[in-house]
Amino acid sequence: MPLVSAAHVPTIDDVVAAHAALRARRPLVQALTNTVSTNFVANVLLAVGASPAMVDNPEEAGLFAGIADGVLINLGTPTAAQVESMRLAAKAAQAAGKPWVLDPIAAGGLPWRGGIAAELLQFKPAIVRGNASEIIGLAGLGGGARGVDSSADPADAVPAAIELLDHAIAVSASGPVDHVVGRVGENVVLVRIGGGSALLPRVTATGCALGALAAAYAGIASDPLIGLVAAHTHFAVAAELAEAIAKRPGSFATAFIDALDAVDEAALRERAKIEPAV
Amino acid sequence: MPLVSAAHVPTIDDVVAAHAALRARRPLVQALTNTVSTNFVANVLLAVGASPAMVDNPEEAGLFAGIADGVLINLGTPTAAQVESMRLAAKAAQAAGKPWVLDPIAAGGLPWRGGIAAELLQFKPAIVRGNASEIIGLAGLGGGARGVDSSADPADAVPAAIELLDHAIAVSASGPVDHVVGRVGENVVLVRIGGGSALLPRVTATGCALGALAAAYAGIASDPLIGLVAAHTHFAVAAELAEAIAKRPGSFATAFIDALDAVDEAALRERAKIEPAV
Amino acid sequence: MPLVSAAHVPTIDDVVAAHAALRARRPLVQALTNTVSTNFVANVLLAVGASPAMVDNPEEAGLFAGIADGVLINLGTPTAAQVESMRLAAKAAQAAGKPWVLDPIAAGGLPWRGGIAAELLQFKPAIVRGNASEIIGLAGLGGGARGVDSSADPADAVPAAIELLDHAIAVSASGPVDHVVGRVGENVVLVRIGGGSALLPRVTATGCALGALAAAYAGIASDPLIGLVAAHTHFAVAAELAEAIAKRPGSFATAFIDALDAVDEAALRERAKIEPAV
Repeated sequence: MPLVSAAHVPTIDDVVAAHAALRARRPLVQALTNTVSTNFVANVLLAVGASPAMVDNPEEAGLFAGIADGVLINLGTPTAAQVESMRLAAKAAQAAGKPWVLDPIAAGGLPWRGGIAAELLQFKPAIVRGNASEIIGLAGLGGGARGVDSSADPADAVPAAIELLDHAIAVSASGPVDHVVGRVGENVVLVRIGGGSALLPRVTATGCALGALAAAYAGIASDPLIGLVAAHTHFAVAAELAEAIAKRPGSFATAFIDALDAVDEAALRERAKIEPAV
Repeated sequence: MPLVSAAHVPTIDDVVAAHAALRARRPLVQALTNTVSTNFVANVLLAVGASPAMVDNPEEAGLFAGIADGVLINLGTPTAAQVESMRLAAKAAQAAGKPWVLDPIAAGGLPWRGGIAAELLQFKPAIVRGNASEIIGLAGLGGGARGVDSSADPADAVPAAIELLDHAIAVSASGPVDHVVGRVGENVVLVRIGGGSALLPRVTATGCALGALAAAYAGIASDPLIGLVAAHTHFAVAAELAEAIAKRPGSFATAFIDALDAVDEAALRERAKIEPAV
Repeated sequence: MPLVSAAHVPTIDDVVAAHAALRARRPLVQALTNTVSTNFVANVLLAVGASPAMVDNPEEAGLFAGIADGVLINLGTPTAAQVESMRLAAKAAQAAGKPWVLDPIAAGGLPWRGGIAAELLQFKPAIVRGNASEIIGLAGLGGGARGVDSSADPADAVPAAIELLDHAIAVSASGPVDHVVGRVGENVVLVRIGGGSALLPRVTATGCALGALAAAYAGIASDPLIGLVAAHTHFAVAAELAEAIAKRPGSFATAFIDALDAVDEAALRERAKIEPAV
């Protein structure tokens, strides 16, 4: 997948169209993800209408990347064998022109996985998604994260995200307001997506699930920047719907899965908070 | 465990008796299963009154198969070490006369795991359970699955399921109507189990959990065909009860665990849709 | 971490103070735990206000133990690589003076992991937490467990728990009434914690989550005995709150996460059942 420019700054109409395409085409998403997130990621993908497959062994990972519509590579709990699978899947996805998403969990804070993340960038992910600390860390700008939680503000990660556009087509830093960057023609564009819920970081693997949703949308969208904006928007709108029903993390997690399923065009148009800032 | 014939075509009375035995005897089920399903499988087993143990390392898997009442071997996310454990557990189960269940996830579509599944058949599973594509794939009749979802109709898998009776005592293909085959005397019998819920395939690992439930019932039933019919029936009735409470996948998953616990003789007799077709 | 004595037998005031410290300091807990429990353990830690990180590969486990405030080592589904990580993390935690918790799942019943558990004791865990059979098994007093469920009464495990005080600062055996032992000056003290819910053992990984909570509290408490009593008390009070809302295991699991979040000083003071018995 070569580096490409979007035709225009993504709008709510693009998000609605991407959402309709997701429901219609049910993209097959291969997820090489951490042990904490596998079940939740699969359920999130099913809830939005995608089809998950967690093929992450070295014997099959490359083959499957050629079958899948999109691939998620998440560095949460890498093992030696899974890392080998990641290399094979990323390489095969690149060769087949399939979009893949890199979620560089804690890559800035832990040198071993930092090296793996940097190495994987050579296979040109369509999307890099992380929290602010991870995006800053991956871009090599320093910045320390404490465990897997983000301690930086997404706005602070924008320069790092832009730097990562040398490797990926679209990059986002998640937080209270998500910051998504990409290119439209010669210009770098920044799209802020608000909304969401303060309960999201109180449930484990929600960030991982957002990465998986980005892989699903990238698998059907006309370009990764639109796919990434659509994923963040779908996620944020669902979180708002869930928070209207559940106020604590256990019941919120359940309501969130329901809400990802329930989100429709009307909910997207009513609640989306997409703010482009070229 | 030699190939055996059931004394008669399973009836609702057999299912009720098996359910009572499950509750009374709390079978210990060893599950070698995929990373997506471990938590859900364990909770399903606990909900029905069984006792789960996920012993899947090569050092202990064979030993534990001799202790367990039933063993589940699920090929969802195999690693080299887990595959070695599967060989050891299947072999030990066979040697000890313990029933084991093979769930050949995606075995038809991916050659590496297809070879593993075929190899494991030599250890004579009591039960093979899969979706239609997987049963067709395992039987070597061709048929392609897309990822782990089934794209074939269970009725189409009946010839393949019957072919697999050369290796297993009872075989089922799950779907909107589950199709279970086995032998009664010289005859091959087909039992269809209806009901269930369209929300089941919207929750990940429900098929895996059905395989685990089959291992639990096989651990207490007089023969695997009765155990497999009982597992499908318990599952379908619980799904109906859950769908009466929850209409979307997140809340359905929770309600389903509750319903697996709540199913009793009255619910089985009122809702079971068991249709034998010799 | 040297063996230490608590200044006094833990009281409800100590538990309330520890709970306030947990919420204020958000300890970072490294969990090397089994595949069944990872998601639930992370969500339990987030619900109580701690910060989970499941770093369990050999390349990073030791490094991370020096960063974390507390470490959980749970033997539920050990792999060769994870066991190596456990050695490195336990050693690093000891060297850095960080408290770590050993949860010796099924260590008494399975020789391979029994050997690992015994070996890990050399790195002096702050806390050992298990069910009665596991505590008895680890102490080498015999006693057989059936799978991972406990078949012994916690009161019967007190002599074994006291024996384990040669290796750890505080030891508990979970059950209908939890039994916690430690030292105050020259005296061994026993603290019983009642309450809880009969639904807890109907949900998988609740014991694992209690071990993780013990690691969180050990990370902020003035001594591990107070931390362990606080963890058991917080857990039992939350289970009571959850059982008031949900009567079956699926909905109970969700309500339990909510309740762990909801527990506050008032709930602790109203519901805690802490019974010291020197």
